[in-house]
Amino acid sequence: MPVLHQMQMSGNCYKVRLAGRQLGLSFKLKDYPEHDGLTRKPEYLAKNPNGRVPMWETDDGKYLPESGAILFYLSEGTTLQPTERWARAEMMQWMFFEQYSHEPYVAVARFWLAYAPKEELEKKRHLVPEWHAKGNAALGVMETHLKSRDWFAGSQYSIADIALYGYTHCAGDGGFTLSDYPALSRWLARVAQTPGFIPLSQSW
Amino acid sequence: MPVLHQMQMSGNCYKVRLAGRQLGLSFKLKDYPEHDGLTRKPEYLAKNPNGRVPMWETDDGKYLPESGAILFYLSEGTTLQPTERWARAEMMQWMFFEQYSHEPYVAVARFWLAYAPKEELEKKRHLVPEWHAKGNAALGVMETHLKSRDWFAGSQYSIADIALYGYTHCAGDGGFTLSDYPALSRWLARVAQTPGFIPLSQSW
Repeated sequence: MPVLHQMQMSGNCYKVRLAGRQLGLSFKLKDYPEHDGLTRKPEYLAKNPNGRVPMWETDDGKYLPESGAILFYLSEGTTLQPTERWARAEMMQWMFFEQYSHEPYVAVARFWLAYAPKEELEKKRHLVPEWHAKGNAALGVMETHLKSRDWFAGSQYSIADIALYGYTHCAGDGGFTLSDYPALSRWLARVAQTPGFIPLSQSW
Repeated sequence: MPVLHQMQMSGNCYKVRLAGRQLGLSFKLKDYPEHDGLTRKPEYLAKNPNGRVPMWETDDGKYLPESGAILFYLSEGTTLQPTERWARAEMMQWMFFEQYSHEPYVAVARFWLAYAPKEELEKKRHLVPEWHAKGNAALGVMETHLKSRDWFAGSQYSIADIALYGYTHCAGDGGFTLSDYPALSRWLARVAQTPGFIPLSQSW
């Protein structure tokens, strides 16, 4: 059976659990404690030299890191990917947007403000205004899109929505005010109504 | 005719020019001067609310930002994308790796050390050691892969190689020492030998 190497509270790992549940897949979880540094140890680095979770392990012992790549791999040929060429381009647009312009601020603020040891946070405190400025800019870009669209890629729910949902729905943990974004807030509610939806806290 | 909205010295824009040339596509360039801030003006933000280049404009007036999404869109169904499912997963893995773990350090160091106004660099000087540490970590991950593989996705040259080539080949501008990475250096030479290859400095 495939294995998802993961941390439960990581939004990047949650994206894979959510897609996996909605696709009806069978797989096991292997959990890594948040602060143990196991993903930087030689045994893990032999599987993923970049030392991060999530990592997908196939039945035949191959390893795939990067949440976006895992989402893409698991959903090829399913209803979680549009088939029309432009909609597929939009799907990729928003998945790259999320990893480059959203996650490094929205997810990072959440990690440091909600999960990191307090004494570590103090060393990062001076970065909080930049995280909030750039994170709010990213949420603003999403809001603009969602004023006229229900979903991010084409006219259907896809892995682009899952990729953006992962850290947007819990942005409040990082000090963001989601009620400032009404169209985005309605989209969050739509995602939570999709068949097979599971919340971040729910284990496999 | 399609239009690539771009900056000539941006590695992200170069990726699209390189793929476009190798795919034999016809399109025009619209250049944005580096320090004019035009991509943050309302006229541009109406097309791409995220305010960045590259942006692809189609014949029928649609806009696609994100270099990875443009590469994916332009190369669907071509030899620049593998068809085998696992190789496609690897393609996405390395494209997301590039945008998350490589570009924010390797490209950013190059920008500030080689292109930014000197007085602006001084405000960022304290970040150089972190850019170099994380950028070298990313180059090390590439080196590990390339010790046993010729290309990043499957066994063929693909948009994953183009995505990684964009800022790796000019990492020296950012203070990185590419000769420390012999397998990576051989891969750079292989990419430069692919049919239709153009260097970053070459205009369209």
